[in-house]
Amino acid sequence: MAIVLCIPIAALPPSLQDNVADIDRLKRALSETLGEVTLVAPWRLAGQVAKRFREAGFTGAALINQVEGRCELVDFLPALPALLPAMALDLGTTYLEASLVDLLTGRRLAQAHCPNGQIPFGDDVLTRIHAASRGSGLADLQKAAIASINVLCVRLAEQAGCPTQAIRAMSVSGNPTMVHLFLGLEPYHLCREPYIPLVNAPDTVCAVELGLDINPAAPVFVLPGVGSYFGGDLISGILASGLDQQEETSMLIDVGTNAEVVIGNREWLIACAGAAGPALEGGVARMGMRAGPGAIEHIAIDPASRAVEFQTIDQQPACGLCGSGIIDLVAGLYLAGIIDRRGKFRPGSDPNRLVAHGNGVSYVVVPADQAAAGRAVVLEQVDLDALMRSKAAMYAILSTLISQVGLAFTDLHRIYVAGAFGRHIAPRQAITLGMLPDLPLAVYRPIGNSSLTGAEMVLLDDQARSRCRQIMQNITYVELNVNQEFMLRFSGSKFIPHTNHNLFPSVPVFEW
Amino acid sequence: MAIVLCIPIAALPPSLQDNVADIDRLKRALSETLGEVTLVAPWRLAGQVAKRFREAGFTGAALINQVEGRCELVDFLPALPALLPAMALDLGTTYLEASLVDLLTGRRLAQAHCPNGQIPFGDDVLTRIHAASRGSGLADLQKAAIASINVLCVRLAEQAGCPTQAIRAMSVSGNPTMVHLFLGLEPYHLCREPYIPLVNAPDTVCAVELGLDINPAAPVFVLPGVGSYFGGDLISGILASGLDQQEETSMLIDVGTNAEVVIGNREWLIACAGAAGPALEGGVARMGMRAGPGAIEHIAIDPASRAVEFQTIDQQPACGLCGSGIIDLVAGLYLAGIIDRRGKFRPGSDPNRLVAHGNGVSYVVVPADQAAAGRAVVLEQVDLDALMRSKAAMYAILSTLISQVGLAFTDLHRIYVAGAFGRHIAPRQAITLGMLPDLPLAVYRPIGNSSLTGAEMVLLDDQARSRCRQIMQNITYVELNVNQEFMLRFSGSKFIPHTNHNLFPSVPVFEW
Repeated sequence: MAIVLCIPIAALPPSLQDNVADIDRLKRALSETLGEVTLVAPWRLAGQVAKRFREAGFTGAALINQVEGRCELVDFLPALPALLPAMALDLGTTYLEASLVDLLTGRRLAQAHCPNGQIPFGDDVLTRIHAASRGSGLADLQKAAIASINVLCVRLAEQAGCPTQAIRAMSVSGNPTMVHLFLGLEPYHLCREPYIPLVNAPDTVCAVELGLDINPAAPVFVLPGVGSYFGGDLISGILASGLDQQEETSMLIDVGTNAEVVIGNREWLIACAGAAGPALEGGVARMGMRAGPGAIEHIAIDPASRAVEFQTIDQQPACGLCGSGIIDLVAGLYLAGIIDRRGKFRPGSDPNRLVAHGNGVSYVVVPADQAAAGRAVVLEQVDLDALMRSKAAMYAILSTLISQVGLAFTDLHRIYVAGAFGRHIAPRQAITLGMLPDLPLAVYRPIGNSSLTGAEMVLLDDQARSRCRQIMQNITYVELNVNQEFMLRFSGSKFIPHTNHNLFPSVPVFEW
Repeated sequence: MAIVLCIPIAALPPSLQDNVADIDRLKRALSETLGEVTLVAPWRLAGQVAKRFREAGFTGAALINQVEGRCELVDFLPALPALLPAMALDLGTTYLEASLVDLLTGRRLAQAHCPNGQIPFGDDVLTRIHAASRGSGLADLQKAAIASINVLCVRLAEQAGCPTQAIRAMSVSGNPTMVHLFLGLEPYHLCREPYIPLVNAPDTVCAVELGLDINPAAPVFVLPGVGSYFGGDLISGILASGLDQQEETSMLIDVGTNAEVVIGNREWLIACAGAAGPALEGGVARMGMRAGPGAIEHIAIDPASRAVEFQTIDQQPACGLCGSGIIDLVAGLYLAGIIDRRGKFRPGSDPNRLVAHGNGVSYVVVPADQAAAGRAVVLEQVDLDALMRSKAAMYAILSTLISQVGLAFTDLHRIYVAGAFGRHIAPRQAITLGMLPDLPLAVYRPIGNSSLTGAEMVLLDDQARSRCRQIMQNITYVELNVNQEFMLRFSGSKFIPHTNHNLFPSVPVFEW
């Protein structure tokens, strides 16, 4: 059942013999459909609902919010509506992605994204947490987030051809800091040992309380988190992958600013989040960018001719590299002998594209005259170094976690790859780099923006909402940053593909 | 269990090994006491509750509102409080009476009353309903009620020596019109056939939403009504009398502006409300007043000497007659031969006190030189006529209802007499008038302001709150105003004690 129900009602009009009050009459009719549940008519809405029920001649459709432990009667329509739009939101630190789904059919009606209006307060969660502790910082950050979300509300409603007031519910999937700031809750302790959120599982809020530009009575369901570094976006990923429902053990990898990993099945779930160093979201490289128009998302280097072929999103002129583009590029550079196993440029290996300058050497991916706005897309040694640390951290996280549960990678049924890794991660290239384990490609399943998918699921299905609670209870969170084993594995992973070549039999090793 | 629970908490502080969020930690600790219930932390309060929980070192007492279908976590105190005050309110059309009870002990802490600030909009419910339909009338009436209630909040808090914010809950018992106006709900249809309230059983409201001067998070529980003429004040009466729990069949009579009567036992309940004509509240007679200081509440006339002896409330100089005083007086006048069986003054029967004037004859109850402010307390023929109609209506209502359920008065185990009948109704005098059936005096049980008592009960005991719902479901409401039998019985009751003297064997009949 969806988070908001639309229930057809045909009640008898009142008479001297049946003088039950309007709201109680409507509740009586609803109890025939809803059965034995607690049904309340919130005071703020009761007068209006009664009026509409009367005006509609006691026949039409009642709207019911399903919130914790009870059903709330929030509106009455003269007839069943054609659509019942609800908004799913992936509330990212850098970007917001949202979609509108129809609660009646499950159909996706619209999609939109925009930057997080909190960016002027700081790029990452730590600077935002600090900003929140100064003066009116917390309120300002909340306002900035709500303003960005309201931009998306308007865009989604326009696309779907409905007023924003027709949006009857919202779900929000984000990391714990984003969730705290969205709700105006003090994030102070999130980044201070022992890293305690104010709340893991916020209860449903009413849209009007947060100033959201959707129907004031809309319930806002926030996906729960598990700890300061493991938020609702990850729970969304588990929902979207179905990890928590499968008999076989699988793994979920979500790479954003942090690398977050879950291993498990329907019996158990183990999770960890590692600060993977500079990671693969927009920002890893000077030319790094989010998967938007003009981002290079796939790139290939001919090992013989060293010719470069690439593909940008929406076929726009190239203006940067998204996560999948950077992985493709660095794997190609390695296979073409332009970088060595340590991820260092080999001067003279590609005279056409390697350019020496004061700081060292850079690789010209797209020359200025072929790139957007006449700005060449370039990869520098510092970008390569950052990627090497990220990929090493990633493999160290994955291998530490799999060893902690006493399994090998080959025991995994699937590896789901989610997050801002680019729209279409190519596992082959990530394996070449030694970032992901050397498993048959069929094991890998890219699941796109699973934070958004999970947010859509909780709107459409109360099973998904109860799965959230179940996941929260079943999951064991492992703190990797305090793990010695992790640091050893990290050092071993700082080569392409790895110091221990036996771990990556499918990757050729060149000794230049 | 009380409507607000205060639950001692001693939670372990968070650590790296136990990184559950503050609110979830508190919920976890509470679930040990509360068991399997839905426990929510309303968004508006979660930040503050978490902060207080942390500041108290994770030890102290949580405050939980018990509302429909769930428990709401609303506050955290560093220690168990000495008192947990809650306010019970009898929201009368003319007067408001309130008390403060301690939810920890059930002890009554304070009591206060004041006129209903809506009186300038109209004396009775009909004129108020009309006023509500004009311009900002509804909002103005609501504001007036809330302002009066807030006066009582301050007085009660002062008496109890606590701030108003320490009042953690409120219950409201009133007729359906008063309840609609209190909640700002359109009362329009209450007085128009088929007389349908907007709501019979309002769901719990939060004090801050209504602008009440108590703790903003306090739940406001409104006692449910059954129909437009049968409100929460009557359900309160049933609670206070215990009518709905006894094996024996009893009767409850509540006399205010209307006469409302319930007959029943734990198996069934039949109710009716009759417009009893000008009734026995302040206003029935020109000298009528509420039971306040200076009101004559008991009066006796020596049949031989015709000397008058009376007793005023608080021993203040007499300024009027409350309900019990008027009944005593008229019964005394009859037994002393000063009025006849039709309730007419007998000129010449008491030359000292009967005074002729333009309009006819008046009876001087207290001469000007003995009365408050030098204004004589006088009973006029019009007052007598009004009382005769009221008492006739009352007996007609009682006898119609008892015959409709196929019983006789002698089948009744108890008759509970409630309402603004004066503080201490004397059933003997009411029987003499033929207002109440001629039964042994032990059958009668005055229960005072049962509207207030019921309001106190629902604060202290969730059993009382579920009894309300049970009563609503079990009660059958009979519309007496449209009953032919009633009109016949009314005519027969217009004599003292009755046209059929056999119904009142204990009352002497004089034929002057």
